Amino acid sequence: MQLIDGKKISIEIKAEIAQEVKNIKNNGGKIPHLAAILVGHDGGSETYVANKVKSCEEVGFKSTLICFEDNVTEKELLSKVNELNNNNGIDGFIVQLPLPKHINKQAVIEAINPCKDVDGFHPVNIGRTVLGMPSFVSATPFGIIELLKRYKIQTSGKHCVVLGRSNIVGRPISILLSQKGSYGDATVTVLHSRSKYLEQICSTADIIIAALGQPEFVKANMVKEGAVVIDVGTTRVKSKLTKSGFKITGDVKFDEVAPKCSFITPVPGGVGPMTIVSLLKNTLLASKKEIYS
Amino acid sequence: MQLIDGKKISIEIKAEIAQEVKNIKNNGGKIPHLAAILVGHDGGSETYVANKVKSCEEVGFKSTLICFEDNVTEKELLSKVNELNNNNGIDGFIVQLPLPKHINKQAVIEAINPCKDVDGFHPVNIGRTVLGMPSFVSATPFGIIELLKRYKIQTSGKHCVVLGRSNIVGRPISILLSQKGSYGDATVTVLHSRSKYLEQICSTADIIIAALGQPEFVKANMVKEGAVVIDVGTTRVKSKLTKSGFKITGDVKFDEVAPKCSFITPVPGGVGPMTIVSLLKNTLLASKKEIYS
Repeated sequence: MQLIDGKKISIEIKAEIAQEVKNIKNNGGKIPHLAAILVGHDGGSETYVANKVKSCEEVGFKSTLICFEDNVTEKELLSKVNELNNNNGIDGFIVQLPLPKHINKQAVIEAINPCKDVDGFHPVNIGRTVLGMPSFVSATPFGIIELLKRYKIQTSGKHCVVLGRSNIVGRPISILLSQKGSYGDATVTVLHSRSKYLEQICSTADIIIAALGQPEFVKANMVKEGAVVIDVGTTRVKSKLTKSGFKITGDVKFDEVAPKCSFITPVPGGVGPMTIVSLLKNTLLASKKEIYS
Repeated sequence: MQLIDGKKISIEIKAEIAQEVKNIKNNGGKIPHLAAILVGHDGGSETYVANKVKSCEEVGFKSTLICFEDNVTEKELLSKVNELNNNNGIDGFIVQLPLPKHINKQAVIEAINPCKDVDGFHPVNIGRTVLGMPSFVSATPFGIIELLKRYKIQTSGKHCVVLGRSNIVGRPISILLSQKGSYGDATVTVLHSRSKYLEQICSTADIIIAALGQPEFVKANMVKEGAVVIDVGTTRVKSKLTKSGFKITGDVKFDEVAPKCSFITPVPGGVGPMTIVSLLKNTLLASKKEIYS
């Protein structure tokens, strides 16, 4: 069994991006610039955005953080989105979710110019992903594919079971893995809350992507000997073993599943660290106009 | 075994649409208006477009056919697309594919206003389908779902195997069937040219959607007793039995598969007749502004 070390890979990729930014700077090119809009004071959101800004600094990007109070109107927010769309200095930007209930999240996402949608949430980017066209792919599926590449885990012809059909993980990764091309060409089955014979189907998988958000859902009996297991779950579960009183728990019962695997991601330290790196990569792509020319 | 009679259903739906158009007319509403752009003189394309226009007349729609010669420039075509986008009289329009090689098909598709994209080929409509938002769904997947509905074939929790991953059939139907909601909620596996254990996986399916374009690919040994089989294939195969010297052949070896099925679509007369009806339905939805308000 080999551990897929997302932490290590994310550091490597950050170093690669930092080197590329140095080269751009030396050649007198434009430094990539990411902007982030944060609404309100949700603790999780504040931490996530702070980490994104910090990561930008680490790799040499410019970053701009725009904060609004909880009572910002949808109109004000849309006006800011429009301003960022038209600001040539900003290569890409994100609106940190969740948004307050009085704001139509989808209207905000659809207001973002797809060319600057480095979160990959705009329907145009999702549609282009489905069509196999250049597109911004959202952070988690992007990160998963990157981990498979770095560990040279071939997917062609393999049976890949995706547990969960969310718009930000299950659905896009299921599409990417069954797309034509390298690190695609898998036979993909999407399992979800309404699926029958879930355990039985899961136990035939060569590769399992667990993205249900149900702590320790995947048990040893659901995993074939030699399978690759990618655990996307990050649920806060109460714990007596940690100072904080909780621990981040994956969708896979790691202790009993890991010995059966050829490769497995730990939680934390697997897929998690890859998500910010994916955002940085998308920002770099946006800056280089590699997706939309 | 029950035959799924797409011909009969398509006639029923056309009658329903015709009745709705009558009601709209009686209430002084706007008659739905579909426009079609045809480039060149491809025999198949001319026939398809002629049938679409004829079907519009049958249900009381207005229709406009715009023809260009093979040597039309991309700029001229885009200019016409733009004109139709801005023409409030036209509710929806299609550009008949294929286009000559000197024209960038994707650029033309993306130039269509998604609100008028009744073929459902624009990335925005595909992205919205993935996100479970209101969207124009392309004709064949739309028609398949409609057949399942009309025959009350439940899909929730069923294992559905989709053979083929094309952008216009396999991919979108796989997404729709695993989406939340009625006539969704299936466990979906997408099989394709690179899949291993294809026959084995196929033979576990409760529902098979065959959309590979390989005549008589699905044999009796690949079908479970009691399965539902939807055959999307329409390949012209040489035949000594017909006057024309060829016959339209499905992806399913009908004679040996049908006796094992609970439901099966014939070819022709199954999915085929549903595609034009789906286009009419989308045009009606566009006219009523039910997808984009």
